[in-house]
Amino acid sequence: MSIYEHKVQYYETDQMGIVHHSNYIRWFEEARTDLMDQLGFGYEKMEEIGIIIPVLSAEALYKTMTHFADVVQIEAKITEYNGIRLALSYVVSDKKTGVVRCTGKTSHCFLNKAGKPLSLKRSFPELHNMFDQALNKQPGDDLSTNVKNL
Amino acid sequence: MSIYEHKVQYYETDQMGIVHHSNYIRWFEEARTDLMDQLGFGYEKMEEIGIIIPVLSAEALYKTMTHFADVVQIEAKITEYNGIRLALSYVVSDKKTGVVRCTGKTSHCFLNKAGKPLSLKRSFPELHNMFDQALNKQPGDDLSTNVKNL
Amino acid sequence: MSIYEHKVQYYETDQMGIVHHSNYIRWFEEARTDLMDQLGFGYEKMEEIGIIIPVLSAEALYKTMTHFADVVQIEAKITEYNGIRLALSYVVSDKKTGVVRCTGKTSHCFLNKAGKPLSLKRSFPELHNMFDQALNKQPGDDLSTNVKNL
Amino acid sequence: MSIYEHKVQYYETDQMGIVHHSNYIRWFEEARTDLMDQLGFGYEKMEEIGIIIPVLSAEALYKTMTHFADVVQIEAKITEYNGIRLALSYVVSDKKTGVVRCTGKTSHCFLNKAGKPLSLKRSFPELHNMFDQALNKQPGDDLSTNVKNL
Repeated sequence: MSIYEHKVQYYETDQMGIVHHSNYIRWFEEARTDLMDQLGFGYEKMEEIGIIIPVLSAEALYKTMTHFADVVQIEAKITEYNGIRLALSYVVSDKKTGVVRCTGKTSHCFLNKAGKPLSLKRSFPELHNMFDQALNKQPGDDLSTNVKNL
Repeated sequence: MSIYEHKVQYYETDQMGIVHHSNYIRWFEEARTDLMDQLGFGYEKMEEIGIIIPVLSAEALYKTMTHFADVVQIEAKITEYNGIRLALSYVVSDKKTGVVRCTGKTSHCFLNKAGKPLSLKRSFPELHNMFDQALNKQPGDDLSTNVKNL
Repeated sequence: MSIYEHKVQYYETDQMGIVHHSNYIRWFEEARTDLMDQLGFGYEKMEEIGIIIPVLSAEALYKTMTHFADVVQIEAKITEYNGIRLALSYVVSDKKTGVVRCTGKTSHCFLNKAGKPLSLKRSFPELHNMFDQALNKQPGDDLSTNVKNL
Repeated sequence: MSIYEHKVQYYETDQMGIVHHSNYIRWFEEARTDLMDQLGFGYEKMEEIGIIIPVLSAEALYKTMTHFADVVQIEAKITEYNGIRLALSYVVSDKKTGVVRCTGKTSHCFLNKAGKPLSLKRSFPELHNMFDQALNKQPGDDLSTNVKNL
């Protein structure tokens, strides 16, 4: 698995001269969707087969400031998965120096298109295996799975 | 019709210490949806009955700078409407001083949910009348119409 | 003190058909800056006299979904203040039904323009009193203070 | 010169199920700052030596819709430069199919930190040459210049 990178854009800064704190929540999403792409079954495929993955909670701890034109690396890791709920942790760090900018967490559930909670384990066992195998893998570990287009 | 107001938020600023230029395009949308609310049939009602109003073009001329905590007034006016196409113009000005911050235009068409172009005139004559009557009305003019929930 | 209101804009939605979760973090900021305005000394005045208030942490618990054109009320309350650190809690609820959409917290410190931590208690006693008196006040309580332009 | 690429993020979509139109204005900025990096003197270096490059106008013509997870290529080209004013044009197209999504233009001036207009030709002849040589170059052309850190 490769580590997701993001180059800071001008429109992400605020008048403090740093990245506005709300953007880290968006970067978590960038890294999360990238992780799922790497697992072999991205968000857009999920939604195509009728699975919605809303965010139940999000938190960010801001350690140091990120500036325009910096490149950050965002490590996303699946920390909890039980077939119904999913949680990830994130570490955002400066690519050049390795200094940690921000850490965070999000938690999620799975819904069908009617908005009803979904047990991935029961309804989509192949995707269940995908998440289950990815649990606690580190960036750099082999995350390739054999999920086919369902 | 009342003039739409927007208070500038911190997250709308960039490191130049002013509002990022992309936000004016969003403010045009705020004023446009507010105008349609005032006409009596807002975007959300449009979408409920299956009408999508995508943006075909947008332009902004930035005159003077807007800062955090400023209150701006955004005048939206329908400048063209022919049953198939819709165009609006916008003037953003500082509430306190009246100084113009930005002017702009957007143009739009009407699509059904399948993405096919829609003649409002033929398919939704009541909405057609609503837009037709609003053409070239000034902020302050009576814009009340008798559109019912369709 | 009045409760801050926000009308959901089209650009705040995502393809799930609901408000993107990152926007709640921005709404917390809207309510926080509004609270400080009501206390009598807003963010823009803070920055004018050289005080920066960065966000150290932010979290949100998403309870129910918010849709385009909904009006939400955002109650912000100062839950901790000790002269050096500041924390707030937030409740976002639907204006019409009162249903809670999201709760959250943020924490902050005070920096001078050189980026050095600032004891408000020592350096700006009048602002210190302002925050101290606002601690744990409820929306609806009288929050007027006598802070003058410093 | 390489062509700038952007992968569409979930938070860039709206409830129409496509990219919100305001984001194209942001993508123009992404491609513009990337172009300047490639010319050898990026926005952040400009601002370090006291040059601000505000946007005077922006326009976008939306041709076809962009969806989540699409990769777009954004070609930015300097179309006008006279030492005082700068204008660029943009073409956003789908990476896979080459279908054009959007075209656009922006125009800019140069200001010093006090907000006064700046003649790059007079005050920064090396940067003047950089822009002058880049005028009307195509993506793929050699754009390397010899601008040093000033």
